Amino acid sequence: MDDTAGTRQAAIAYVESLEQRDWPRLARLLAEEVVHEMPQTRERIRGRSAFLRFNTEYPGDWHLRVRRVLADGRFAALWLDVRVGADRLDACVWVEVDERGLIDRITDYWPEPYDPPAGREHLVERW
Amino acid sequence: MDDTAGTRQAAIAYVESLEQRDWPRLARLLAEEVVHEMPQTRERIRGRSAFLRFNTEYPGDWHLRVRRVLADGRFAALWLDVRVGADRLDACVWVEVDERGLIDRITDYWPEPYDPPAGREHLVERW
Repeated sequence: MDDTAGTRQAAIAYVESLEQRDWPRLARLLAEEVVHEMPQTRERIRGRSAFLRFNTEYPGDWHLRVRRVLADGRFAALWLDVRVGADRLDACVWVEVDERGLIDRITDYWPEPYDPPAGREHLVERW
Repeated sequence: MDDTAGTRQAAIAYVESLEQRDWPRLARLLAEEVVHEMPQTRERIRGRSAFLRFNTEYPGDWHLRVRRVLADGRFAALWLDVRVGADRLDACVWVEVDERGLIDRITDYWPEPYDPPAGREHLVERW
């Protein structure tokens, strides 16, 4: 299996193990020194055990579904459909794996809805 | 050149042509029926000419730099460093090319900063 195929498999397994709350499986996918960043809040979590705890403690009835996964060498990009209770949102997640195929870097973006700026109504349709 | 290599080239050229305001080059990269979506504002732009106009009319001194590009078959994901005047933000852009290698779908996310929720201070560091 080449880097790209292994990265794709790791990225998909990452989402599956979160969705299934399969913490032992999630732990096996992660490098011990994994770094998780959320640039919107400027938060960083260092290390597998802290990141596992972040996920096990995360509140709410959250569910993840892969809308699209791209793998390219040791990088993956995940476009996720997220459901938290009745709320739906999209997430963009950037993943890196190390030379052993373990995930050692995850960057999450949680883009929130906002009102469109004025001045482009003549070009756009809304949904 | 396989699909992945062509998609990567198209995705990079897309950002370069925007940054350089090279509208003829941008036009050559786009399928006539290109669809551009911004899910955060639920806005959709249909067609090359409307999308070109959206970009040529876009206000502000904006600049784009590719932080990471992933290509995978006919899909690409772009992680962009954006500068608008003195403001800096990140963008996540999902691109699709058609069988001719022309970009026929672009989905932009513009994640904005927000305050971290309480209750995870014991696991995170801030930057």
